[in-house]
Amino acid sequence: MKRCLPAWLSGYRREYLAGDLSAGLVVTLLLAPQGLAYALVAGLPAEAGLYASIAPLLIYALAGRSHAQSVGPMAMTSLLVAATLARLAEPGSGDYLALAIGLALMSGLMLAVLGLLRLGFIADLLSEPVLAAFTSASALLIVLSQLGPLLGVSSGGAALPQLLSGLWRAVDDINRIALPFGASALVLLLLARWRGDACLRRCGLTAAARQLWLRLAPLLAVLVGMALVAGLDLSAALPVVGAVPSGLPAPAWPALSLAQWSQLALPAFFIALVNYVQSLAVVQTLAQRRGEEVDPDRELLALGLCNIGAGLSGGFPVTGGLTRSLVNAEAGAQTQLASVIAALGLLLLAGFAAAWLALLPLPVLAAMIIASVAGMIRFDSLRLAWRTDRADAAAFALTFALVLWLGVDSGIVAGVLTSLAAMLWRSSRPHIAELGRLPGSHHFRNRLRFAVEHLPGALFLRVDESLFFGNARQVRGEVLARLAARPDASRLLLIMSAVNRIDTSALLMLARLDAELAARGVTLHLAEIKGPVAQRMEGGGLLAGFSGRVHLSTQAAWEALAA
Amino acid sequence: MKRCLPAWLSGYRREYLAGDLSAGLVVTLLLAPQGLAYALVAGLPAEAGLYASIAPLLIYALAGRSHAQSVGPMAMTSLLVAATLARLAEPGSGDYLALAIGLALMSGLMLAVLGLLRLGFIADLLSEPVLAAFTSASALLIVLSQLGPLLGVSSGGAALPQLLSGLWRAVDDINRIALPFGASALVLLLLARWRGDACLRRCGLTAAARQLWLRLAPLLAVLVGMALVAGLDLSAALPVVGAVPSGLPAPAWPALSLAQWSQLALPAFFIALVNYVQSLAVVQTLAQRRGEEVDPDRELLALGLCNIGAGLSGGFPVTGGLTRSLVNAEAGAQTQLASVIAALGLLLLAGFAAAWLALLPLPVLAAMIIASVAGMIRFDSLRLAWRTDRADAAAFALTFALVLWLGVDSGIVAGVLTSLAAMLWRSSRPHIAELGRLPGSHHFRNRLRFAVEHLPGALFLRVDESLFFGNARQVRGEVLARLAARPDASRLLLIMSAVNRIDTSALLMLARLDAELAARGVTLHLAEIKGPVAQRMEGGGLLAGFSGRVHLSTQAAWEALAA
Repeated sequence: MKRCLPAWLSGYRREYLAGDLSAGLVVTLLLAPQGLAYALVAGLPAEAGLYASIAPLLIYALAGRSHAQSVGPMAMTSLLVAATLARLAEPGSGDYLALAIGLALMSGLMLAVLGLLRLGFIADLLSEPVLAAFTSASALLIVLSQLGPLLGVSSGGAALPQLLSGLWRAVDDINRIALPFGASALVLLLLARWRGDACLRRCGLTAAARQLWLRLAPLLAVLVGMALVAGLDLSAALPVVGAVPSGLPAPAWPALSLAQWSQLALPAFFIALVNYVQSLAVVQTLAQRRGEEVDPDRELLALGLCNIGAGLSGGFPVTGGLTRSLVNAEAGAQTQLASVIAALGLLLLAGFAAAWLALLPLPVLAAMIIASVAGMIRFDSLRLAWRTDRADAAAFALTFALVLWLGVDSGIVAGVLTSLAAMLWRSSRPHIAELGRLPGSHHFRNRLRFAVEHLPGALFLRVDESLFFGNARQVRGEVLARLAARPDASRLLLIMSAVNRIDTSALLMLARLDAELAARGVTLHLAEIKGPVAQRMEGGGLLAGFSGRVHLSTQAAWEALAA
Repeated sequence: MKRCLPAWLSGYRREYLAGDLSAGLVVTLLLAPQGLAYALVAGLPAEAGLYASIAPLLIYALAGRSHAQSVGPMAMTSLLVAATLARLAEPGSGDYLALAIGLALMSGLMLAVLGLLRLGFIADLLSEPVLAAFTSASALLIVLSQLGPLLGVSSGGAALPQLLSGLWRAVDDINRIALPFGASALVLLLLARWRGDACLRRCGLTAAARQLWLRLAPLLAVLVGMALVAGLDLSAALPVVGAVPSGLPAPAWPALSLAQWSQLALPAFFIALVNYVQSLAVVQTLAQRRGEEVDPDRELLALGLCNIGAGLSGGFPVTGGLTRSLVNAEAGAQTQLASVIAALGLLLLAGFAAAWLALLPLPVLAAMIIASVAGMIRFDSLRLAWRTDRADAAAFALTFALVLWLGVDSGIVAGVLTSLAAMLWRSSRPHIAELGRLPGSHHFRNRLRFAVEHLPGALFLRVDESLFFGNARQVRGEVLARLAARPDASRLLLIMSAVNRIDTSALLMLARLDAELAARGVTLHLAEIKGPVAQRMEGGGLLAGFSGRVHLSTQAAWEALAA
């Protein structure tokens, strides 16, 4: 029995309880408005945000390993959901909600399967500069998309051109009550971020307490906003969240056709990828504070189950949030019991007190979202990349521009491709050295650096990189060019001592190169093939058909070709 | 003046003329029905196929280098166009046509820009197994999508599930006149492919003549089909191409909004990629026959201009076709004059004889398409990959399944990602060796293979691969694991002799690792950093902040740490 329980539960100590309880309550109060806000960013009814907040907290507590990770709706994920679904259904329709639930289920399933297959390396599909560019550009899009609600106007759009033109058209409709509400909330929250710490320090608070209070500032803004709406009876004069049905999330399976599931597959993969990268970063940050070990595959599985749970209870894709998890840790969370308590708190809120949330003014929610993502717009990664690696700087700039121009959904595809294309570009032109023999020895060296002797009619080339589809074509071209410069050479030796790996594309290239050379009367010889590479060549039956021979060492090849 | 002319024109010899003329005429007759057929695959009016055939032939003749390359509509490209546009507009609508034209313009612009930037390496984004899987699965989808027209029923769908269910629903509506037309054309064409060569050999034809006649079999089927429809007056009884307006392609710019252009960007990139890879393969095949040199960047530019030309004249994306180009070469094409003649022939046909095409029976066109793509469904690449590299075999299987399940447009994205993920996976776990000193020497070797001595309290690790975002996380994990196994070590030396390149993500990892180790009381030292790597570390200001020191050689580090 005990082995089935999560470690924190079977080893629970009474002294953890006070911290877990207070963290649980604080997180409940923070998550309720955050869930609503991110549901609205995703174009979903407010209650979906509450539902998406509950099951993931419980599931992570059972399946995850981090002591303070808090999984739930996140701004960037919600924007990705909105951008994906905008192409597939009308916001507000039943289909739209069903597709959002489908996205949670499908991305959850993908994460869980990747976790079980121990394929956590997919987090490495995104390089740091590309991830930073994606995050900054998405945050900018979120800020722009929330300017509409902040000003009390409706302005849609998933990318910069549409957002700007939407805002431009809506300028005349600015709601004169919404504006001061939103603007003052925003100014307050930004002041809290920039000046708050110095201010509270003068009040004599400890560093940890200051951090916690500042992170709770959004909650204060929300409560004041609700109180003002209730007290001044403004619910008709400015946009509010409106009726949130009280009720518990009910298990549900979305009614989607096979074609709709198919359409969700690729976006679900990218949402899964972004969510996993975010969540893993949070877990690593938390782990460093306590010296915990992180098991990326386990986290992959846990996040997958959280998303499946979110989908089954009527929610949308979720991930670990840094702010939320830090609040949890700073409010005293010692174990995942804090998350269990927060889940129960949200459940009570959703079941019995949801009506209270109806008075929440949308401009204040928008201000809260803007303030929370504004700090994510950062260019230090671009600066570092510019100083160290121009290809990375170009990848940053390209990803940033594409996310703004195409929207987050296409932007993330472009970003991943940019990461990988930059890597491909770097390894696509391997170094190839022409070798000769140091006179009187068995040593072979680069002819550009040493005084070496050559075998007449033979060209010795050493390829200094593993061969794969990304450089096969260039290697072929370079070998042919070197051969063209030595028209007397009728025997070509490729020295494979630095080729650690070879793939099918490179094997096919070698076979074709051999045929091509044979047609010109040049025989291709190979030397110093490493074990795994030789094995693959034999497996493919490619060594048997070669025009030349395979030599164990370069010296053996020299002797054989000289004979 | 002469320098502005393409090489084939300024060096034209009279003896080329007969070959070019006959090839031009043969290609005209082949391209007319092919253009119509592929326009219908793309969901476009038949005349768009004619228009898309003319300008690209002329432009390639001016900008391209291959003597026999023939650029025009292709089955796989048309299927990609159809799959992309199905999500964005109603087939048959003006928007649909405008978007198709937009795709040609945008993918052409991308190709041209990539060509000017000499970024031909993007062709390497697709590994051979992934390309083979993509081609086979698309060909299968094309066959299934043409079964509807072959049987005289309408059945839509862009992926396997929809295609199969569409065919299933349409079974009762099979047209009893279309069926024998389509089926007999298909049987004839398949017989010509499988038995034709042996048959014609008995008639005493040379190999080249046999090849040419067999490649022209589709043309024969089309002419017989048209004759039967005209003779038996069947144009009302079975689906025919119908009125094709006579007229010349007029320069036009599609009326698309900025939002629509944005939606086209990513599909246009993938269409450009697939078209370039196909076209380059054709050029390379043709070049090998004549010993021509291929300049990939030049071909990129030429194909880009062809697509821009196709778009400006009301056509859709085009690429080089292998069958078409081989017919051109085998019919005697010596230079691109053959293509110029074919373009003029098609221009005459479009201008004056398009009405004749109205009688072309759709079931025969469908049979022609099926017969031409059926040979592209091949699994030899999977067999080879299975024997040589299981990751490549998995990439083949995954791409094949995803193209069938999701359709070609999402499938190609998934395929590219699969290629790259397989590569990332291979290089994500670099070899790290713990070194010791050969007693009494200055040589350092792997402690697993040699009897070496160690410096107390120090751990010497050599990383045997370049560091980049794809392996940074694993390297950090492995270094920490090695350190955990040596709790006495308070100094860690990373020997960077095999690190040829480093990117921003890896630099950030090193900086974070240093901070993490410093917090545990372990200092991080580096040795044998190569020039370019050291330059980047200095550029990023990362060397200055290091807890330990940078040593020129491992021996120098040994002495410094021993002191």
